[in-house]
Parts: sequence; structure tokens; C-alpha cells
Amino acid sequence: MTLCSSDSILHPSQLILFAMDLKQIAKDTAKTLVSYLTYQSVRTVIAQLSETDPPQAFWLQSFSSREKIQDGEAYLKALFQERQDLAFRILTVREHLAEEIADVLPEMLRTSIQQANMDQRRRQLERMTQLDLSVPSVNPEQEPNSEEIG
Amino acid sequence: MTLCSSDSILHPSQLILFAMDLKQIAKDTAKTLVSYLTYQSVRTVIAQLSETDPPQAFWLQSFSSREKIQDGEAYLKALFQERQDLAFRILTVREHLAEEIADVLPEMLRTSIQQANMDQRRRQLERMTQLDLSVPSVNPEQEPNSEEIG
Repeated sequence: MTLCSSDSILHPSQLILFAMDLKQIAKDTAKTLVSYLTYQSVRTVIAQLSETDPPQAFWLQSFSSREKIQDGEAYLKALFQERQDLAFRILTVREHLAEEIADVLPEMLRTSIQQANMDQRRRQLERMTQLDLSVPSVNPEQEPNSEEIG
Repeated sequence: MTLCSSDSILHPSQLILFAMDLKQIAKDTAKTLVSYLTYQSVRTVIAQLSETDPPQAFWLQSFSSREKIQDGEAYLKALFQERQDLAFRILTVREHLAEEIADVLPEMLRTSIQQANMDQRRRQLERMTQLDLSVPSVNPEQEPNSEEIG
């Protein structure tokens, strides 16, 4: 169910471009996921350490606010130079994380996109309805010379 | 094959914490994916428009450098206020993109994480080997009083 389908806007030539880029987009998406799971692994390890070894948790927290965590591989490279044990631990955690969530991702992604699109369409419909209500509607049976007023 | 397994570092209590957070991490990852695919959809639509309607491509490019695209939903909300047609088109493209790549994501994620971990472990092994080579090894048969020199 879509409030407004824009499929008709897509020209066949555009769909070809789309297919050509698809492999690269999938590859870039996987890379983004790896970086995101590295960030989640760092958070996980900090949470674990704060239970078992607060000074270590504090150290990793400080290190992670200094080093850019947006690029997971560069972050890990820097961590290996300072605390090899924590770096190895983060590698282990991110591999576990990936294993655990990989199979639920397709379904979660589809559901999330559909939900987000539905929310956007609903919000826009509401907005358009409010605009219609706030602007006094022009009665089509009205005399066209009403345009001349003003 | 791991050069250094850090599994042994994980305490059972930490694995419980891990499992508790897993659902939230999966949810947050899906949200990140939706935002990333929104960004890729904007790029795709700009590429399509640059073939068919360069002024529109230029407009969307400018809009996208003004509005923060990191938060996909906020970006779309802003776009709906200015160019409803382009916003609807991006919704369509991101849903297509998600459909197309969803099923390959688990395998790509696993492969990417394993590859990235192998690269990090190999790099660290090389680094440790170089450190060993650059620091003159102390010959265990040497006289201990060599420390006194200097």
C-alpha cells in the first residue's frame, strides 16, 4: 500500500544504471556494517569492563573518544599499537556480533525500510491535508473574475 | 585460523551481558542500514538525474550538501517540504535497494568481518615480528653485567 507510487518516474535507462551500481552499493554497505559493528563491539567491551575492571573501561572510553571510531579499521590499528589485548578482544566481539545478527538482518532491514517509508508517506499525507485545510479552498463554481480582486 | 584467540578473555558473566544487548544492537544496526541506504538512494537519484535532467541533479546535490544526510529520516522530512516528487522517488529507490541487497547481506557481512579480522591479525603479527627484528635480541647466554654499560 503506497499513498503515492513514484515507480512511474523511473525510466528504463535509470534502472540499468541502478543495476550496474548495485554490486558496489552492496559492497559499500557491508563495509559500513563492519565499521558499525566495530563501534558496537567497543561499546560492548567498555560495558563489560565497567563491570569487571572499571579503570580499564575508563581507559578504553578515553582512547575511543580520542581516536576516530567512524573508521573501524583505522581505530583498531591505533588500538593495536597501544593495547593489543583489547584490540584482539574487539576483533573477537565483532565477529561474534556479526555471527549473531547476520541472519536476522534481511528481515529487519525490509521491515525497517517499509515502516520508515510508511511513516514518511503518512506524515506527508497529513501535512498535505493540513495545508488543504489552512488554505481556503477555491470553489470551482465560483466566478473566475475573483482572481482580479487585489 | 586465528593468530591469537581472545575468546578465553571473555568471562561467562560478560557473555550474558552480551546476549542481553544483542536485540538492541540488531535493532540499531537495522536503523543504521536504513539511513545508509537512504544516503545511497540519494546518490543514485542524483546519478540518474545527471543523465536525464542536469539542473535537477544540481538542485538535489546542493540540497543534500545543506541538509544533514546522516539522519536519513530528518533529511527526507526536509526534502518533502521542498520537493515532494524527489522525496517520494528516494523512498521508492531505498525500498528497491533494500529488496535487492537484503539477501546477500548476511554472507557479505560474515565474509567482510572475517577478512577484516584476518587483515588486522596479519598486520599485528607483522608489526610484532618487525619489533622483534629491530630490537637487538638479548642473548640469554650473554653475561648479565652487560646491563651495567652506559
